Amino acid sequence: MEIVTRIPRMRMLAPRLKRDGKKLALIPTMSALHDGHASLIRRAQIIADVVVVSIFFNPIHFQQGDEFEVPTRDLARDAELVANKGVDVLFAPSVDEIYPEDFLTYVTTDILDCRLCGANQPNYFRGVTTIINKLINIVQPHFTLVGQKDAQQSIIIRRMVRDLSMDTEVVICPTVRGSDGLVISSRNASLNPAERRAALVLYRGLQRAQELVEREGVREAATLTEAVRQVLETEPLVRPEYVALVDMENLNPLTTLADDSESLLALAAHVGQVRLTDNIVLSTGTT
Amino acid sequence: MEIVTRIPRMRMLAPRLKRDGKKLALIPTMSALHDGHASLIRRAQIIADVVVVSIFFNPIHFQQGDEFEVPTRDLARDAELVANKGVDVLFAPSVDEIYPEDFLTYVTTDILDCRLCGANQPNYFRGVTTIINKLINIVQPHFTLVGQKDAQQSIIIRRMVRDLSMDTEVVICPTVRGSDGLVISSRNASLNPAERRAALVLYRGLQRAQELVEREGVREAATLTEAVRQVLETEPLVRPEYVALVDMENLNPLTTLADDSESLLALAAHVGQVRLTDNIVLSTGTT
Repeated sequence: MEIVTRIPRMRMLAPRLKRDGKKLALIPTMSALHDGHASLIRRAQIIADVVVVSIFFNPIHFQQGDEFEVPTRDLARDAELVANKGVDVLFAPSVDEIYPEDFLTYVTTDILDCRLCGANQPNYFRGVTTIINKLINIVQPHFTLVGQKDAQQSIIIRRMVRDLSMDTEVVICPTVRGSDGLVISSRNASLNPAERRAALVLYRGLQRAQELVEREGVREAATLTEAVRQVLETEPLVRPEYVALVDMENLNPLTTLADDSESLLALAAHVGQVRLTDNIVLSTGTT
Repeated sequence: MEIVTRIPRMRMLAPRLKRDGKKLALIPTMSALHDGHASLIRRAQIIADVVVVSIFFNPIHFQQGDEFEVPTRDLARDAELVANKGVDVLFAPSVDEIYPEDFLTYVTTDILDCRLCGANQPNYFRGVTTIINKLINIVQPHFTLVGQKDAQQSIIIRRMVRDLSMDTEVVICPTVRGSDGLVISSRNASLNPAERRAALVLYRGLQRAQELVEREGVREAATLTEAVRQVLETEPLVRPEYVALVDMENLNPLTTLADDSESLLALAAHVGQVRLTDNIVLSTGTT
């Protein structure tokens, strides 16, 4: 496996592979690799010849004054992890490499970036679209793999790629859960045992809504989101931020489950100091 | 010459050329082709194997309520003009092809887009960066040619390409002037004879500043811009909007001419109903 830290070096890979008719896949990550990433890597290995994992903690996700912890960068550990998974290239640029001092250009996806998780984090998705746009330009992958776990992020990235006619196919991969149903994520890893037990209500709430749709034919958004909230309320450690049923393309709030298309049931909640999200896709055709 | 109106068709060209080791150049235009474009085409033919001219009148340059005239699209005439110049491909997509109904993604270049011509046209440069970003993604040119005539636009495009690591080289070509010194542009073409005579003071003003720098060693921005304004004031038909000395990278206002680098002396003025711009590059090393 090759470790690349500089942009010009990374740019050299794609043209060479394309000349040989080979397909390149990019998996952008923010560090702290876990089993969710492993499933993206496996999928990438099936659809592409060469797999690039990028690790970059994006400081422009955050506003000045926001509290956030810059994860300690342990390149040696991350490199070993991805090398063990058979990844071909690890792209791990520094912040200065990506954002020179007079960096001024941003990519935004209006409306989508204010909904759900964007309501309380005004710069977050601008940070996502800007860094993912730049990474795609540098790596020039045939496929860009992202997780359904971050549903809003996936939808926004797919929209950006379509709107700007970027030459990559966004592949959205299923959420990976532990045997208890909890999403595998770096944030969940920072929960203490009591919080982790409490956090299980997130998926239980979503499953309750799915039951209502599938077994009782419920279609009203208010009934579904209220049912989720009731499950969340059984856990005093959990403080819900939002529970929403929205359409999958524009994240518009729905009053009833769409008939011909899939709908996204998404939530965010604070468990102790940690903010968690989860979601499922619902459709009236689900059996 | 091939005329292409659809994005998927246009996308097919670059990979084929790149496999053959050929270089592609893009000249983005807003229609109304003139001798300024002809000089960009000649330059493109020298540095690249295949030249694509795009013609697209960009509606998102403008805000709702802005007065602007959508130029009558005469594809047959434009096609004949560029074919006569030896252009290989004319890319002329419709507005619906570029901006589907639910288009939401925009590219901005903060700070730069509020200066000079951006001060009174808040969405203008967001429109420029968004459409040029999309055109570059579609055409995937080795070279993107723009004119020094639109200095701020050229500087912003070059910055966007650098910031987002887009895989193209921005080539800024010299301003083309008529024998009387007036910039060749579609806007100048709409002046009546009296206005056209009046408009000559724009370049005369800039030349006066250049004289002061070269012959009298003037360095102060205020002295230079005041000298330009005095020349502009000799023409009652001309109403200056701004005259500014700024640095070439960040468009920051300068108090004195930079010593080691080039500075941009730029102006905008209204002549009758027409808003005109002009600029020259000054350096203390000019002889």
